[in-house]
Amino acid sequence: MMIRLGELLERFGGQLTGDPGIEVTAIAPLDRAGASEISFLSNSKLRALAAQSQAAALVLAPADEPEVAATYTGARVVTPNPYAWFARAAQFFVAQRTPAPEPGVHPTAAVHHSARVDASAHIGAHVTIEAGARVEPGAVIDAGCYIGREAVVGEDTHFFANVTFHARCVIGARGIVHSGAVIGGDGFGFAVDGGSYIKIPQTGRVLIGDDVDIGSNTTVDRGALDDTVIEDGVKLDNLIQIGHNCRIGAHTAMAGCVGVAGSAHIGKHCTFGGAAMINGHIEIVDNVHVTAATMVPNSLTEPGRYTGYFPVARNAEWERNAVLVRNLSTMREKVRALEKAVKALDAQRQNE
Amino acid sequence: MMIRLGELLERFGGQLTGDPGIEVTAIAPLDRAGASEISFLSNSKLRALAAQSQAAALVLAPADEPEVAATYTGARVVTPNPYAWFARAAQFFVAQRTPAPEPGVHPTAAVHHSARVDASAHIGAHVTIEAGARVEPGAVIDAGCYIGREAVVGEDTHFFANVTFHARCVIGARGIVHSGAVIGGDGFGFAVDGGSYIKIPQTGRVLIGDDVDIGSNTTVDRGALDDTVIEDGVKLDNLIQIGHNCRIGAHTAMAGCVGVAGSAHIGKHCTFGGAAMINGHIEIVDNVHVTAATMVPNSLTEPGRYTGYFPVARNAEWERNAVLVRNLSTMREKVRALEKAVKALDAQRQNE
Amino acid sequence: MMIRLGELLERFGGQLTGDPGIEVTAIAPLDRAGASEISFLSNSKLRALAAQSQAAALVLAPADEPEVAATYTGARVVTPNPYAWFARAAQFFVAQRTPAPEPGVHPTAAVHHSARVDASAHIGAHVTIEAGARVEPGAVIDAGCYIGREAVVGEDTHFFANVTFHARCVIGARGIVHSGAVIGGDGFGFAVDGGSYIKIPQTGRVLIGDDVDIGSNTTVDRGALDDTVIEDGVKLDNLIQIGHNCRIGAHTAMAGCVGVAGSAHIGKHCTFGGAAMINGHIEIVDNVHVTAATMVPNSLTEPGRYTGYFPVARNAEWERNAVLVRNLSTMREKVRALEKAVKALDAQRQNE
Repeated sequence: MMIRLGELLERFGGQLTGDPGIEVTAIAPLDRAGASEISFLSNSKLRALAAQSQAAALVLAPADEPEVAATYTGARVVTPNPYAWFARAAQFFVAQRTPAPEPGVHPTAAVHHSARVDASAHIGAHVTIEAGARVEPGAVIDAGCYIGREAVVGEDTHFFANVTFHARCVIGARGIVHSGAVIGGDGFGFAVDGGSYIKIPQTGRVLIGDDVDIGSNTTVDRGALDDTVIEDGVKLDNLIQIGHNCRIGAHTAMAGCVGVAGSAHIGKHCTFGGAAMINGHIEIVDNVHVTAATMVPNSLTEPGRYTGYFPVARNAEWERNAVLVRNLSTMREKVRALEKAVKALDAQRQNE
Repeated sequence: MMIRLGELLERFGGQLTGDPGIEVTAIAPLDRAGASEISFLSNSKLRALAAQSQAAALVLAPADEPEVAATYTGARVVTPNPYAWFARAAQFFVAQRTPAPEPGVHPTAAVHHSARVDASAHIGAHVTIEAGARVEPGAVIDAGCYIGREAVVGEDTHFFANVTFHARCVIGARGIVHSGAVIGGDGFGFAVDGGSYIKIPQTGRVLIGDDVDIGSNTTVDRGALDDTVIEDGVKLDNLIQIGHNCRIGAHTAMAGCVGVAGSAHIGKHCTFGGAAMINGHIEIVDNVHVTAATMVPNSLTEPGRYTGYFPVARNAEWERNAVLVRNLSTMREKVRALEKAVKALDAQRQNE
Repeated sequence: MMIRLGELLERFGGQLTGDPGIEVTAIAPLDRAGASEISFLSNSKLRALAAQSQAAALVLAPADEPEVAATYTGARVVTPNPYAWFARAAQFFVAQRTPAPEPGVHPTAAVHHSARVDASAHIGAHVTIEAGARVEPGAVIDAGCYIGREAVVGEDTHFFANVTFHARCVIGARGIVHSGAVIGGDGFGFAVDGGSYIKIPQTGRVLIGDDVDIGSNTTVDRGALDDTVIEDGVKLDNLIQIGHNCRIGAHTAMAGCVGVAGSAHIGKHCTFGGAAMINGHIEIVDNVHVTAATMVPNSLTEPGRYTGYFPVARNAEWERNAVLVRNLSTMREKVRALEKAVKALDAQRQNE
C-alpha cells in the first residue's frame, strides 16, 4: 500500500519540508528505512544516524530540525512528539495491511438467543456468549472467548483468543484484552469460622472504561458488593492480579507480574514496574511511580518515585550483608556503647 | 424473594429479639440497608452506625448487644460470629436469585463415551471431557473447560469457564475452580546431561480435598512420582503457582501471586500474603503466617508471623540505604576499629 | 509391559554386571522398587539404602559401584550420569504405557482450509487453526488450543489443552507448551502523548527453537519490530512473563513466576530461581545463576551466582531491622562522628 506523505500529515499533523506527493509504504527504524519508507527520530542522540538515513522522510522534533536539516536531504516532518506520531502512523500502516476480521458469528460459536451481538462485530470459533450479553459495533471476539450473562463489550473493543469475561462485567470502547485474561472472577473474600473459611459471595462487577488494554493472563476480580473499577486509558501488562474492589485511576500503567490486593485505590497517571506489590485497603495518589519488585504496604500520599528492593550482589557478598542486616540491632547497640564510652573518655579528659 | 427472619434463624442460628415473621429480601451494608433488608455489625467500632441503621434487622455479637439495643429499634439477631452468619446468609440470598445452571450436556461439548457424567451435572458449551473421566452429581462445568482422562470432579464442585483439569487429577466436593486455572500440568523436573535438560516424566497426580477454592489462572502441577496434595478447605487466590509434590495443609489460605516451589510441605491453618515465595523441599508447620512479598528460603519450624521485604522509601532515600546495605561490612569494620581504638584510649588513660 | 535389561542398555547405554535377560516393567525409587523394577542411585548419600533395595537392577555411578557391589546382589548398570539414565528410561516406560493420541482432526475443530496440518498430527476438540498456519508431523494439539494465522508448530511438538499460539509465531521440534500459555501476545509498548498512552503496534514474532518447554499460564510477548527469541533447549516453568524483544539463550532454565522485562538479553545455560525479576534492556552473560526472589536491575557481565532478597525473620524482628535499614544514614553519621571524636581524643592524648 502506497500513501502520500501529504495524507499522513492530514491524519497525524506535523510541519512538512519537502514534497507532499512523495509516496511511502511503511514506517521503519532509522538505520533500516529505505527509499519508500518513513522513519522517525525519537531521541536527539540519534541525530547523526538520522543524517545518514535512507528514508524518504523523517519525522522529528523542532529541536532536532536545524542539525538534521544541514545534512539529511529527504523530506522532514516536524512535530512536537515524533514518537507519538510514529505510534499513530504505525497503527495506520498495520491496519492497512492486516485483513480486517469479517463481521458475523462463526458457525461453531454458542451465542445465547437473548444476547445482542451487533451485526458488524466478529465472533470467532468456539466462542460462548451467555444470556443477555451485549457486543457492540465493531467489536472483535476471537476464538474460544467466553462472555458471561449480561456482560457488555464496547465498540471496537478486541478480545484476543481465549479471554474469559464474566457475568455483568462491562468494558468500554477501543479496549484490547489479551488471551487468557480473566475479568470478573470472584474476589478472595471469606469469613473465618472455627478455623475454616466461609465464602463471601462476590456480587459486584468489574467496570472498565474506554481505551483500556489488559495483558495476557492478567486477572481482575469482581467486587464483593461494590464494583472493581478500571478507569479510562489504563494499560495493564501480562500476569497482573487486581483484587476485588480496587480502583485503578485513568491513564495508570502497570508492567508485568504486578499484584494489587483488594480495595486498593490507585490514582491517575501512576506507573508500576514489574512485580511491584500493592497492599490492600491503601490509597495511592496521582502521579506516583513505583519501581519494579517493590512492596508498598501503606498509603502513598505524595506523588514521586518510590522504591524498595534488596540490592542484588554476588551470592557470597549478599550472604554477608544479609547476616549484617539481621544483626543491625547488635550493630546499633555497639554504636551506642561507643558513643557512651567516648563521651565518658571525653568527660574524664575535661576533668583531668 | 421474601424470607421470614425466623426461617433465616432456623438455617443459620442466632438469638432473636423481635418478630420472627418480619420478611426480608436481601442482606446489605449497615449504611445502605433499607427496611426490607438485614444488616450486620462485624466490628464493634461501627456501633454508632448500627444505631442509625434503617435495616429491618441487625446481626450482631453478644458484646455489642447492650449498646445497640439502647438505640436501635429493629429486630436483633445475636450470634457469636456475625460475619460468618452474614457470609452464610449472603450465599443463601445469592443462590435464591441466581438461575441454577441446567443439568445436562451442551450440544457442542465433546464428552468421550467412556466418561461418566452424572445426569444432574451441568456441562457447558465447548467443554471437552476425555476418556474415563467422572463428573459427580451437581457439578457445574462451565464453557470451554477441559477435563483429562480419568480425572474426577466431585459433587457440587464448580469449574468456571476455561479451566484445564488434567488426566487423573481428583477434586472433592463443593470445590470452586476459577477460570484459567490449570491443575495437573507437568511439574518442572529435569536431569542435566552435558549442559542440556532431559525431562523427568511427571506421573503423579494432583489430589484436591473438599471445599477447596482455586483462583483464576492459578497453576498446580502434578507430582513427579508421588502426588501433589491440596487438603480440605484450602483457599488459593489468583495467579498462584504450586510446584510438584507440594502438600498444602487443610484450611491454609494464600493470596494472589504466591509461589510455592516443588516438594514444599505446608501445614494447616497457615496464611500467605500476596507474592510470598516459598522455597522447595522445605517444611512449614501449622499456623505460620507469612507476610506479603516475603521470600522463605528455609523451613519454618515454629508458628507465628514471619516477614522479609525491603522497606519502601522515596527513590533517592532508597538509593542511599541500598548503598549502605551493600557496604554494611565496611561499616562493621569501622565499628570494630572504633571499639579497638576506644579500648586503647581507655587503657592508656588508666595507665596514666 | 516387560522389557529386558539388555534392551534398556542398548537404548540408554551403561555397563552391565548381571543377566541382560532379566525383565523389568517399570522404574521406581530405591525404597519402593520391587523385584520386577529397576531403580537408580542418584546421590552417593543413598548408598546404604541401595544396598537394601529389592530392585531387580540398580543404575549407579562408577564411584558408587564398589560399595554397593559389596552388599547389593541384583544386577548393576554403571553409567556416568544415573539420573539422566533414569530420566530417559522413565520417558521410555511412560511412552510405552500411555496411549498415543490418534492422528487426525477432531470433528469439532475449526481448521482453516488454507492451514496445512500433517496427517500424522493430532488436533483435539474445539481447536482453532487460522489461515496459513502449519502443523508439522507428529505434533499433538490438545483440545481448545488456538493457533493463529501463519503460525508454525514443529515436529513432535505437544501443545497441552488451551494453549494460545498467536499469528506468525514459530516453535521448533519436540517442544512442550503447557495449558494456558500465551505465546505471541502483544508486547507492552506505548508512546506517551499528553498524559495518555498510544499503542505501538507489535509486529515482530516469537521464535522458539527445538526442545523448548513452556509452563502452564506462562506468557511470551511478540516483538515490537524485531522478534522475541527463545533458543533451543530453554525450559520455562509456570506463570513466567517474557517481555517483547527478549532473547533467552539456549539451555537456560527459569522457575515459576519469573518476570523478564522487554529487550533483556539473557545468555545460555543460565538458571533463575522462582520470582526472580529481570529488568528490561539489560544483558546477562552465559552461566549466570540468579537466586529466587531476586531483582536484577542492571546487566550482569560475569558468570556466577547472584542474590538479593531481604532475609525473612519473625515479624517483630523484621520490623526492628526494617527501621534500622531505613535509618542507616543516621547510623553512618554516628559512626563518622565517633571516628572524629576518637581521633580528636587520640590527638589530645598525644599532645598531653
